[in-house]
Amino acid sequence: MSTTATSPVMATTERMNGTTPESISINSSPSQPLQQERRPKKESKKYKHTFAVHSTSRTSCLSHDAEVAPSFLGFRNLMGLVLVVSNLRLMIENLKKYGILVTLSGSDISPVDWRWGAFLYFLTPCHLFGAYMIELLAANAAKDVRAKEKKNEDGIDEMVTEQDKKTLFSTWKAIAIIHAINATSMLVFATWVVYYKIHNPGIGVLTQLHSVVVWLKVCSYALTNRDLRHAMLDTTSTQSALPALYKTCPYPANITIRNLSYFWWAPTLVYQPVYPTLPARRWSFILKRTAEFCLLCALIWITSAQYAVPLLRNSLTDISSLNLINILERVLKLSTISLVCWLAGFFALFQSFLNGLAEIMYFADREFYGDWWNSTTIRSYWTSWNKPVTHFMKRHIYAPMVGRGVPPTVAQILTFLFSGILHELLIGVPTHNILGFAFFGMVGQLPLIFLTDVFKQAKGHNAKLVGNLIFWLSFCVFGQPIAAIAYFFAWHAKYGMQTRPVWPGGKAVG
Amino acid sequence: MSTTATSPVMATTERMNGTTPESISINSSPSQPLQQERRPKKESKKYKHTFAVHSTSRTSCLSHDAEVAPSFLGFRNLMGLVLVVSNLRLMIENLKKYGILVTLSGSDISPVDWRWGAFLYFLTPCHLFGAYMIELLAANAAKDVRAKEKKNEDGIDEMVTEQDKKTLFSTWKAIAIIHAINATSMLVFATWVVYYKIHNPGIGVLTQLHSVVVWLKVCSYALTNRDLRHAMLDTTSTQSALPALYKTCPYPANITIRNLSYFWWAPTLVYQPVYPTLPARRWSFILKRTAEFCLLCALIWITSAQYAVPLLRNSLTDISSLNLINILERVLKLSTISLVCWLAGFFALFQSFLNGLAEIMYFADREFYGDWWNSTTIRSYWTSWNKPVTHFMKRHIYAPMVGRGVPPTVAQILTFLFSGILHELLIGVPTHNILGFAFFGMVGQLPLIFLTDVFKQAKGHNAKLVGNLIFWLSFCVFGQPIAAIAYFFAWHAKYGMQTRPVWPGGKAVG
Repeated sequence: MSTTATSPVMATTERMNGTTPESISINSSPSQPLQQERRPKKESKKYKHTFAVHSTSRTSCLSHDAEVAPSFLGFRNLMGLVLVVSNLRLMIENLKKYGILVTLSGSDISPVDWRWGAFLYFLTPCHLFGAYMIELLAANAAKDVRAKEKKNEDGIDEMVTEQDKKTLFSTWKAIAIIHAINATSMLVFATWVVYYKIHNPGIGVLTQLHSVVVWLKVCSYALTNRDLRHAMLDTTSTQSALPALYKTCPYPANITIRNLSYFWWAPTLVYQPVYPTLPARRWSFILKRTAEFCLLCALIWITSAQYAVPLLRNSLTDISSLNLINILERVLKLSTISLVCWLAGFFALFQSFLNGLAEIMYFADREFYGDWWNSTTIRSYWTSWNKPVTHFMKRHIYAPMVGRGVPPTVAQILTFLFSGILHELLIGVPTHNILGFAFFGMVGQLPLIFLTDVFKQAKGHNAKLVGNLIFWLSFCVFGQPIAAIAYFFAWHAKYGMQTRPVWPGGKAVG
Repeated sequence: MSTTATSPVMATTERMNGTTPESISINSSPSQPLQQERRPKKESKKYKHTFAVHSTSRTSCLSHDAEVAPSFLGFRNLMGLVLVVSNLRLMIENLKKYGILVTLSGSDISPVDWRWGAFLYFLTPCHLFGAYMIELLAANAAKDVRAKEKKNEDGIDEMVTEQDKKTLFSTWKAIAIIHAINATSMLVFATWVVYYKIHNPGIGVLTQLHSVVVWLKVCSYALTNRDLRHAMLDTTSTQSALPALYKTCPYPANITIRNLSYFWWAPTLVYQPVYPTLPARRWSFILKRTAEFCLLCALIWITSAQYAVPLLRNSLTDISSLNLINILERVLKLSTISLVCWLAGFFALFQSFLNGLAEIMYFADREFYGDWWNSTTIRSYWTSWNKPVTHFMKRHIYAPMVGRGVPPTVAQILTFLFSGILHELLIGVPTHNILGFAFFGMVGQLPLIFLTDVFKQAKGHNAKLVGNLIFWLSFCVFGQPIAAIAYFFAWHAKYGMQTRPVWPGGKAVG
């Protein structure tokens, strides 16, 4: 029987029957003849009860025998729905138990914290300008040598001896020391203030983050300009040793306040004299990103105060008594909450904030992250979730080490250890507990990185799935909530219950 | 720079860097020269800190500006993981609160229930053989007429008058009445026993299900054989009025105990003299299906006893006091549990049981269900989740009605009402509360069916998604748990707390 009929009868029939084309003849209404080869009309009307429903061999679509696996899109939708519904239920449960914990009443952050935070907010960038002053002196010295060299080439007597150049190159050591003092004194001072003077971990994290970002920027500024200076002075080297992009602003023309200020605000940790830029700002784009950022921050704040804080408080006695089953239950419950905060925080910072800032700065390279959520290896997660830091690590730590003959694997491990120290600075210092959880949480991933590398080479769909699940499990289901509970417990072990909790916006719960 | 290099260096580099091809030159170790066009080696070694990380305009992959949307497969994996993890947590919570409720201790189903159940189990199929006796008499009468006709054609005198045939056709009314009495007396008696004599709803549902299945089989047997008989006697009709499949067993050769017994056990509700069959049984297939069925039944039993029963008991006071927010919370919590039971039950019955039975019976048409989980309309769900019943409804109710001139929409509604009555019989009677929840739960879907039909016509991916979500929400998130709570509450309102709960395998919880 032809299955290509498109008469209105067939449309009706199909709507009722689902799919089976053999049902055409039994469902046709007598008033509308089908335009196709079929049994004589009278008979098809008559013996309907004899219709052969089971006329051929067919398999159940979920059987292994089935030739084509059915689509499971509906189950994906169901998963999403069940996630929403079950968390909605937990929200109702939470509301019944605690009421509304999020309040807009005055914060109890001490004025001392505010004052120190504001002081460091203005002091920290000054060291960027300290770096500028150092580079200005170095550039002038280099310009003198270059001028001598020029005259030399033009036949004017002032000879540039190789000795002169050697002296200049050796000044790099002096410059490096001054840069190191300038940059690191700032970082050390900020760390000291955050650890000893700023009680509130929220303000502490922001201040510490700011100082680490500026420190990385100063390092990149100093290292890049050293190489640019050396490239200028190295007459044996061709100009092609430097990227073509920099030709519009050759060293030392880039050593200006304006150029540095751009780098100060640009959404990158890697200094370049010239960046790819866009011709115009889209104000609607900036507004949208700002709105996203504010809404996501509010979401994180509400989630922390309403859901994370009571949960963390409830877990304190379980940790004290080392009740493992209860700790596991708390970790699993916290994992959903920390995942929401993490995803919202990632989007707020890397998509909304950095894109908005880039638009303001006409900055064209918006690749602030890759599709890390599809990571099949821990390695690919770490190299794709935070591209600004990855770029810094690759350009200023990993590549130079490999260039000097360090084996790539060793260089990778050292880079990762450095990243671990930065994480500990950002978390351990503001929470006043340099426990090493963040550092060892990072270092502990090194075996996992080399272990999950096998999933990268594996071709099969299942290997990729397993790799991705290991990533999510280790990172979001266990890693983050365990770290959060550990720091919260350490905080309360140090300060007791009368102080404010780790999570910003939280309110004491009876 | 060429991106097609496949040297070992590049492999290492890519592993460290993720993807960026421009990083090739900065990460190359000096001992391994790259076989590709590149900057002079010495320079690429030298000015690593000047590498132009930001060399082109790029978008963030989550931006609307991005040309290609990234894959979100990782988030699908995360959804699955969070579902597993959060339900694991709920299982820990349940264990802490209730301990293990599932016991293998003796059941407290009364011996009276067992005896009535066993009695009906053997009595019910007898009516199938009652139908056989009726058909045998009818077939003999028809054979007599046919024999007369044959002689008539052969020129032998015994004339078959049109009057004879008319008489025979009119006997259908008598046969129909006897069939109706035979089939319906059985259904009425079984319903009476289940409602008044069998207290346990588990045994009640099984008994009632058995009697409804046999009733439908008797109806199909009677209706099909009537049409076959009429087709045989209608000399004006060509043989092609009947499906070609039946030619191997023309009426009345199919009226045998053997043929009926096959129909009795065949996994279908639709009688055909001949079914497509397979040449051999695969015993390993049967074993696997049996194992699946047993495991899934155990899963349902454990889920019911350990998770559903305490939840339903806790909801009783909330329902009594009409605390809507608490009822909502209970419904949402129950939805995950009932979903697990529903999916496990569906798979156990339609995939494992019916496929296993079909293999035993050499039955080749295994299409017991379609991919209902992808349904974008309520209509396509109802026509695809239970094909045996759908086939019965289409062949014996919908198609004959349409054939007699009933408008298709009216025929659909009437078919659906009939299905609603069967549902009420199967749920209301064994739980001793003919509340009409099952019936009106079905009838209430009629507007939803016509409403969601628009999603079938809609082309967009989003319309299909919305349709599918409406299906899951109405059916599994709200429909089933609300019905379960309603029947549980009605049961306890009638029998109080001292009796056994609705769910089989449950244990009284203090």
